[in-house]
Amino acid sequence: MRVLGIDPGLRHLGWGVIEVDGSRLRHVANGICDSEGTDLALRLLSLHDQLTRVFEAYAPDEAAIEKTFVNKDAVGTLKLGQARGVALLVPAQFGLSIGEYAPNQVKKTVVGVGHADKNQILHMVKMQLPGCQPVGPDAADALAIAICHAHQSGVQRMKVRA
Amino acid sequence: MRVLGIDPGLRHLGWGVIEVDGSRLRHVANGICDSEGTDLALRLLSLHDQLTRVFEAYAPDEAAIEKTFVNKDAVGTLKLGQARGVALLVPAQFGLSIGEYAPNQVKKTVVGVGHADKNQILHMVKMQLPGCQPVGPDAADALAIAICHAHQSGVQRMKVRA
Repeated sequence: MRVLGIDPGLRHLGWGVIEVDGSRLRHVANGICDSEGTDLALRLLSLHDQLTRVFEAYAPDEAAIEKTFVNKDAVGTLKLGQARGVALLVPAQFGLSIGEYAPNQVKKTVVGVGHADKNQILHMVKMQLPGCQPVGPDAADALAIAICHAHQSGVQRMKVRA
Repeated sequence: MRVLGIDPGLRHLGWGVIEVDGSRLRHVANGICDSEGTDLALRLLSLHDQLTRVFEAYAPDEAAIEKTFVNKDAVGTLKLGQARGVALLVPAQFGLSIGEYAPNQVKKTVVGVGHADKNQILHMVKMQLPGCQPVGPDAADALAIAICHAHQSGVQRMKVRA
């Protein structure tokens, strides 16, 4: 099974693809979709088109995305929400189900604790996906989200089997 | 010139199309795209597909959308942001430019004051678009946004000409 993880963001949207075979994980690819400029609609269109090409290129079976942490920065929440709307739309357009995981759930699954920093996440992503070199922190986060989904859906399957 | 106005929302997304000929306005159509259910991605996909069909059916030349008013309700802002991301994406996919107008700017243009209520907006939309019967308040707001855009872009054209 192939899982594509997404770390949503308007300026930098991280993505990472892993292959899941039981408890064995393998890195497939990772990257960042960037959008710049002043026209918000064109930035969202660019993110949509870049992410669509990633789904076409790697044909994932399932997708996973980080649950957005809403905070007091309403303008930031709105910006992120708009990018997240597009990030949720693309897998739905490919007919995929999408797992949503809170940041601390991702950290707890990948690092073992819910308050890990970026370096710990990068380290554990590299440990669990030998040979993987994330192109940046957003791509490492996206791979961590994919790993979290693989683990959670594996746990679900075991529960169903038990 | 044909203008499509959008009042973005996750549950109810209002839209309205008007024909603009100089200072003359004519109602073409209005409606509401609804999305219900618990799966956010499927709701966004449904909004995207419904709004895409509206653009295909009415072939607008320009689009206009309400600027989102961010408030203290971060969860509500995030939900609206996600729907707004999709609402901005669709016109961009059709290659249209999108005007963005603050709610009080729309009210000031259509009603004459920045603090008009829903009934006043409905009344003035019906006055300015004879024969128009908005299917609900969200559709009336969308028509008001289209009227605002027609007026603003008309003013812009006059400035360019002067």
